[in-house]
Amino acid sequence: MTGYIEVFGHGGDVETAASRFGREAADFLDFSANINPLGPPRGVLEAIQQGLQSVIRYPDPGHRGFKALLSERLGVMQEQISVGNGAAESMALILLGLAPRKVGTVEPGFSEYRALARQFGAEVVHAEGREELAWRAEPEDIEQLMEKVDLLFLGQPNNPNGVQYPLEVLQRLARKAEETGTVLVIDEAFMDFIPVTRRQSLAAHLNDYPNVIIIRSMTKFYAIPGLRLGYALGRAEYIQAMTKKQVTWSVNGLALMAGEACLRSGERYEQETMSQITRERGHLIAGLKTYGCAVTPGEANFILARVPAPWTAASMQEALGRRGILIRSCAMYPGLDKGHVRFAVKDADANATLLEVLGSVLETKGYPNVDQTKDEEQGGERQ
Amino acid sequence: MTGYIEVFGHGGDVETAASRFGREAADFLDFSANINPLGPPRGVLEAIQQGLQSVIRYPDPGHRGFKALLSERLGVMQEQISVGNGAAESMALILLGLAPRKVGTVEPGFSEYRALARQFGAEVVHAEGREELAWRAEPEDIEQLMEKVDLLFLGQPNNPNGVQYPLEVLQRLARKAEETGTVLVIDEAFMDFIPVTRRQSLAAHLNDYPNVIIIRSMTKFYAIPGLRLGYALGRAEYIQAMTKKQVTWSVNGLALMAGEACLRSGERYEQETMSQITRERGHLIAGLKTYGCAVTPGEANFILARVPAPWTAASMQEALGRRGILIRSCAMYPGLDKGHVRFAVKDADANATLLEVLGSVLETKGYPNVDQTKDEEQGGERQ
Repeated sequence: MTGYIEVFGHGGDVETAASRFGREAADFLDFSANINPLGPPRGVLEAIQQGLQSVIRYPDPGHRGFKALLSERLGVMQEQISVGNGAAESMALILLGLAPRKVGTVEPGFSEYRALARQFGAEVVHAEGREELAWRAEPEDIEQLMEKVDLLFLGQPNNPNGVQYPLEVLQRLARKAEETGTVLVIDEAFMDFIPVTRRQSLAAHLNDYPNVIIIRSMTKFYAIPGLRLGYALGRAEYIQAMTKKQVTWSVNGLALMAGEACLRSGERYEQETMSQITRERGHLIAGLKTYGCAVTPGEANFILARVPAPWTAASMQEALGRRGILIRSCAMYPGLDKGHVRFAVKDADANATLLEVLGSVLETKGYPNVDQTKDEEQGGERQ
Repeated sequence: MTGYIEVFGHGGDVETAASRFGREAADFLDFSANINPLGPPRGVLEAIQQGLQSVIRYPDPGHRGFKALLSERLGVMQEQISVGNGAAESMALILLGLAPRKVGTVEPGFSEYRALARQFGAEVVHAEGREELAWRAEPEDIEQLMEKVDLLFLGQPNNPNGVQYPLEVLQRLARKAEETGTVLVIDEAFMDFIPVTRRQSLAAHLNDYPNVIIIRSMTKFYAIPGLRLGYALGRAEYIQAMTKKQVTWSVNGLALMAGEACLRSGERYEQETMSQITRERGHLIAGLKTYGCAVTPGEANFILARVPAPWTAASMQEALGRRGILIRSCAMYPGLDKGHVRFAVKDADANATLLEVLGSVLETKGYPNVDQTKDEEQGGERQ
């Protein structure tokens, strides 16, 4: 019963939670992974079911069907698209293909940026987010970092704080990237959850910013993380360098099939998701504040918060985990502290349950047991 | 209508075949990929179907359930197992994790050995198989190669010729590997198709041969190549080095689920597969000889043959492709020539159809059209 459950450095590890809290993996209400609470679009699981027999054939190593659809939908040439075995593979291929010696990150940020960069031999340096900017870094600090690095990762919206940089800042950074010869990798894994008019993205102007690569995930918005599917957009030279490092057939056939079905599923699901997330995030933030949590205002489908002292991320994760609710400890993020946790925004029922259980834990238990506050314990290597 | 259909360097590319020959991808009788003709074991597709809802969760990044089953079944400690997104990822992880500067291959052999080695920065040198040894290399030649390389790939049975090295030779090579400090990677992707008593494998004696890594594929024998699942067995230090280079969640959730179902599917499917392959391979070899093909005697679920001149791999692939039958050109394998092709061993009906169509092409068409024999055209980068 010691330490956080992020033994692999991430949320969503229901297997570890199952053995830690003595429940079935599928039984948890999982607020630790940021997956669309609507589930996959109508018809996607049925499409997989009907196409299941296709697993007896190799997947298309050229990802041609999915890539053609993406190209059409995004208005980007196929030569500018690299399809990945999850967005994590896209990150790895960028690092393997472009082989930066020095990589920059902005902390707190997604732990894979620095874990993968080190894994593939790069030195990692970082800029620090500021609490008064909702953990964004000052643009000047990012620009200074760019002068030192060959490649910079930036989350937009950023994980775990859920905030965006304004478009003008991105444009300025993209121009700076050209100046310093830095590759600017903008990770838009959670962008789809933000209403279209509020999105701050360079995706429509990729040809104007040759040093920018954009990463997208198909699995969070479309709720298929078990299948693995992501992609990167950038200039053809970058994409070719990535393709050269990709293992043949690394994207599986059912993921490609599901990806096509998701892209064809229509706008209604997208609209419904965005409005539900916006509405539920508001409720959840209000509820969390009622219970004394300090909430970072963000726009994504997750919320960074600090639990009221003397509760810590560890003791709260333990108390909720025993009650079948998983939350993400953020105590191991550089810049954050032992009280920081992240909650996914789920559907109304799930969110109500979370608030109810959280309230009962806080009110009836009052203070956590001392033996539950082992804050020195850390998660896995990837934090 | 020019060149081979192996534009990605491999068989089983029904997408390319579909656009080349104007048919639906699923309509081909595919002898170019070496997949179990029985299809997945009974209940495996049903298990995936029932577990489809699990795609809304992340896969277990520790592959714990599948690894525990493998460990039990193979009598190998979990610390000695690395689960891969297909055997191809296992190869890539070995190269990334152990970072050999010089890699050896025995040609003709699986093209990924040298493609991946170069992809990840190694120099590749090779030993040559001899026609009189069914394209095996002399053990002395492999030993000499070992003195020059940090890592050596050996197919057992080897693709595309389907032959094994005797156990004594493997033992000798494994000892030599210790002497020269070479990592000996034995690729047993097709071993499961060979009857148990005929298998020549060091898998049961891994602890005696610390420099050996064995690679296995789950997708060929269990007929699930669309899902991607393979593994590597070796000493814990090797496995740790591989794990450090693996992208989180690279093995998808349905592959893990299917892998567990396959391992639980029982001996009857295995027996049936081995006896069907043995029986059908005999028929197919006899038939191919009747039509003047020179056949390399092998033990695997595929057959290397040379079509009768003036037919070439290219003209035969074209003639059969137009008739809905895909075969693998082997003209691009180092050491083989423009007449070499590979046929998978499929079920009795499919094999009969192949022989019938092959016979009618050879007898009624006689010689190939001149414009179909563009033998200079090569396949993709991976040959």
